[in-house]
Amino acid sequence: PRIRINSIVPNFKAPTTLGDIDFHEFISGSWTVLFSHPADFTPVCTTELGAFAALKPEFDARNVKLIGLSAEGVEKHKAWVKDIEDVSLEGKEFSYPIIGDESREVAFLFDMVDEEGFNNINGGLVQTIRSVFIIDPSKKVRLIMTYPASTGRNSAEVLRVIDALQLTDSKGVVTPIDWTSGKDVIIPPTVSDEDAKAKFGEFRKIKPYLRFTKV
Amino acid sequence: PRIRINSIVPNFKAPTTLGDIDFHEFISGSWTVLFSHPADFTPVCTTELGAFAALKPEFDARNVKLIGLSAEGVEKHKAWVKDIEDVSLEGKEFSYPIIGDESREVAFLFDMVDEEGFNNINGGLVQTIRSVFIIDPSKKVRLIMTYPASTGRNSAEVLRVIDALQLTDSKGVVTPIDWTSGKDVIIPPTVSDEDAKAKFGEFRKIKPYLRFTKV
Repeated sequence: PRIRINSIVPNFKAPTTLGDIDFHEFISGSWTVLFSHPADFTPVCTTELGAFAALKPEFDARNVKLIGLSAEGVEKHKAWVKDIEDVSLEGKEFSYPIIGDESREVAFLFDMVDEEGFNNINGGLVQTIRSVFIIDPSKKVRLIMTYPASTGRNSAEVLRVIDALQLTDSKGVVTPIDWTSGKDVIIPPTVSDEDAKAKFGEFRKIKPYLRFTKV
Repeated sequence: PRIRINSIVPNFKAPTTLGDIDFHEFISGSWTVLFSHPADFTPVCTTELGAFAALKPEFDARNVKLIGLSAEGVEKHKAWVKDIEDVSLEGKEFSYPIIGDESREVAFLFDMVDEEGFNNINGGLVQTIRSVFIIDPSKKVRLIMTYPASTGRNSAEVLRVIDALQLTDSKGVVTPIDWTSGKDVIIPPTVSDEDAKAKFGEFRKIKPYLRFTKV
């Protein structure tokens, strides 16, 4: 099944650096960021998993679980994690699981491969790309990023879109381009001016369909 | 065909607000950002297309063509563009094309739909989501973002990843997480220390595989 925005994320069982998981049980009422990297002991991946580990308190504060993945075994991940602790965490413990997807079962289920990888699907040496799936507590996929091996992701953008999605769910508002936490939000066109006044108080009406407010 | 990182982007012909195009001819040696929005005369989309229009000089400076798309006609796009000029461009002209994909042919070719949209593929009322395809001058898809209708994108992130991809192509380096233009870059592990010294001069070796330099 192809995974789209609002797809229920498929379930799978897999070994991780913190023990075996059933993915749907792992999610169990949390937001989840599932993200893949090409290979352990490679440079861009080391900076990425380190940055996400350093930001774990920010993800915890938003009720978000992190889980990494590459097409390598758990023992290799565990050896690599010591490098990440050294490079990015001042020796502190790396504390989220990394899936050991040696069979590439999860990689192909989520299509975390590039064109060459897909064409070499039975070749055994396929690396995963830099995919990000943001999954809500009801197990729906809410946002997908697909970056190539050469380009490190943006940790602030992942937190920004989680803040936006959570605000949409909790307050019934939507967010404009380049929104960050604290900036004005948009009242959806499905809400009448009268209902908007009752629900949000003051709002700025730029066009009949473009109304900004604070939440 | 499913579009992945490094897929050659499929060709199509379509009407736009600036005339009919053949997409491969449109690209013709430029970088291209193809992005979809759910609907004209809606609030988040207005802020998005306005922000990209205001940043057009930045995209021009990077040899990047912008082209929008929604599942509505060109005449409706043209009427809406006047609102964008008013809201985001101080009345200046909106100057990149928007595809009128009333048949949803391009939307389905690029899978710019969510789960409900896909299941309603013959329903006729399917809106596009907020997809971004970054395409290089050789027509390869290099990066994909897939945001829901509720969440406006991040214009700085689109420019950041274009800078990263272009630097990778021109200098043979890769970029760490959260990299922005001017920050240190990474020497790929395929380059030996000796070759790195010859090519980049000084570099910082954090791990045998993690070496930072300036370009």
